[in-house]
Amino acid sequence: MSMERIALGIDLGGTTVKIGLVKDSGQFLDTWEIPTDTSERGKNILPDIFHSAEEKLSEHRLSMDLLAGIGIGVPGAVLQTGEVNRCVNLGWNRFHLVDAMHAMFGALPIAAANDANVAALGEAWVGSGSGYSSVVMVTLGTGVGGGIVIHGKLLDGYYGAAGEIGHILINPDEKEHCNCGKCGCLEQYCAAPGMVRTARHFLEAYPEQTLLNHAELSAKSIFDAAREGDFAAGQIVQIICERLGRALSIIAAVADPEIFLIGGGVSRAGDALLVPLRAEYEKYAFHAQKETKINTALLGNRAGMLGAAKLVLS
Amino acid sequence: MSMERIALGIDLGGTTVKIGLVKDSGQFLDTWEIPTDTSERGKNILPDIFHSAEEKLSEHRLSMDLLAGIGIGVPGAVLQTGEVNRCVNLGWNRFHLVDAMHAMFGALPIAAANDANVAALGEAWVGSGSGYSSVVMVTLGTGVGGGIVIHGKLLDGYYGAAGEIGHILINPDEKEHCNCGKCGCLEQYCAAPGMVRTARHFLEAYPEQTLLNHAELSAKSIFDAAREGDFAAGQIVQIICERLGRALSIIAAVADPEIFLIGGGVSRAGDALLVPLRAEYEKYAFHAQKETKINTALLGNRAGMLGAAKLVLS
Repeated sequence: MSMERIALGIDLGGTTVKIGLVKDSGQFLDTWEIPTDTSERGKNILPDIFHSAEEKLSEHRLSMDLLAGIGIGVPGAVLQTGEVNRCVNLGWNRFHLVDAMHAMFGALPIAAANDANVAALGEAWVGSGSGYSSVVMVTLGTGVGGGIVIHGKLLDGYYGAAGEIGHILINPDEKEHCNCGKCGCLEQYCAAPGMVRTARHFLEAYPEQTLLNHAELSAKSIFDAAREGDFAAGQIVQIICERLGRALSIIAAVADPEIFLIGGGVSRAGDALLVPLRAEYEKYAFHAQKETKINTALLGNRAGMLGAAKLVLS
Repeated sequence: MSMERIALGIDLGGTTVKIGLVKDSGQFLDTWEIPTDTSERGKNILPDIFHSAEEKLSEHRLSMDLLAGIGIGVPGAVLQTGEVNRCVNLGWNRFHLVDAMHAMFGALPIAAANDANVAALGEAWVGSGSGYSSVVMVTLGTGVGGGIVIHGKLLDGYYGAAGEIGHILINPDEKEHCNCGKCGCLEQYCAAPGMVRTARHFLEAYPEQTLLNHAELSAKSIFDAAREGDFAAGQIVQIICERLGRALSIIAAVADPEIFLIGGGVSRAGDALLVPLRAEYEKYAFHAQKETKINTALLGNRAGMLGAAKLVLS
């Protein structure tokens, strides 16, 4: 009889830390949240996580040294050495995250990766990507994140920045700047704020009667209006999907995954997003890759905890 | 004392087949070539390779079953199953290449991959990429090919089309078609014929006195004239490097390699290509990836045989 292995999966965000005790079957034993204390350059974040984990483990009559390990996803790049290379949202500068965690949690296996990357790993493990040999997940939220999982392993990249697909330069003619400092990144059109920006530009050019003139502009209101047959909203969705589909075709030419998964809040648009996106992807895809699957992600904000745990449950 | 292992590495091209007996140290025991007989839909290609290999092995007093295995690079996509998905240059349609080779060569390990991919594996093993954890090789020749090697393993892709970076859509405004049927692929500007095409367009717009008006236009004459300080040639090199540098920045945002290697005939331009290319790459690269190395490949047309052998020498 083999023992069930349990890992701590930590999804460290700018406002809350989601923590799960994850079984090697991919099920949760427990999940909880604590606030992220970003004061004093985030120096309390790791101690807060440690204390809350200790408390929960004792509730479950478990001890730290019985865990299979600890995985953590952070909002920034993680180098192959285990160093984080600045996490602006946390106030963290460059330091050796994995070493710092060992000093606190002990000698058990500890692994760290970028948050969008671990979410992709979670979806590939027990979400929409389960059973596929290679998965590229694209997270459409306040930014555009991404992660690439090949034969169950995360592609981390030399600078910890593999799957940074929000910063694929998609429009060489763009004059406005992306948050990253470049011009024309995918994120400028396909993150939720980018979709609103795209809608504003379109409505300035075409100020006719449209449902969107009566709505608070948001990614949701755009897709809702498109679903109701609003012409302007349909055109805006078309522009968004043209950019995103072209980006997916480019990612396919590099990494050639079996399936793309679209996650993040915007993915709740479902078929209103997927149907035009698949059409645009197919238009731009290399001939061998026209049939690459595109689906929505399944796990929502549990993907990060699951993928983080999976980092040490291989 | 450990036995030296030897593999057969086959680089199957449209006009010649390059074959090497490759030691696991990365050195050749022998190399030879035979013509590629593309008559009758390429039905003689595999038998020709088999007979020439048998002959060479007996010269070396070796037998097929003593080999560590056989690797082959082919000019087309190879699926994860070992099937080739059409090789236009060979006259081959879709069939199970690895099974067909087993029927001929016997039960030893046999692996097949795309030719640009195996060249990348060869360079990563014993060429310019040796010692780097991840390598993206870009081959600039009659087309633009590519290959991605991560921790010594080839990224093959679900449809056998990972690293098809010649077909990254780089110019959404392009009206002329690429060989692949799409418009605006990297190959249309950065393959050798694409460079000539770029030069023609530039010279039509700027028909002033230039060295290039006296030369037969070729990738070589463009870089030679640029090196001699010719203004038009310098501008053309700039356009080419802007497109290629932008493509490398996009590849980095997906795969984040430690080093890019530029191979193929055009890479003989050396610093005349590398210096402007590095500047353009840095301009477009995501901030974490500004320092990714870019160098030329080392092995020339031996890379394919070495990489093919490496497929079975891991």
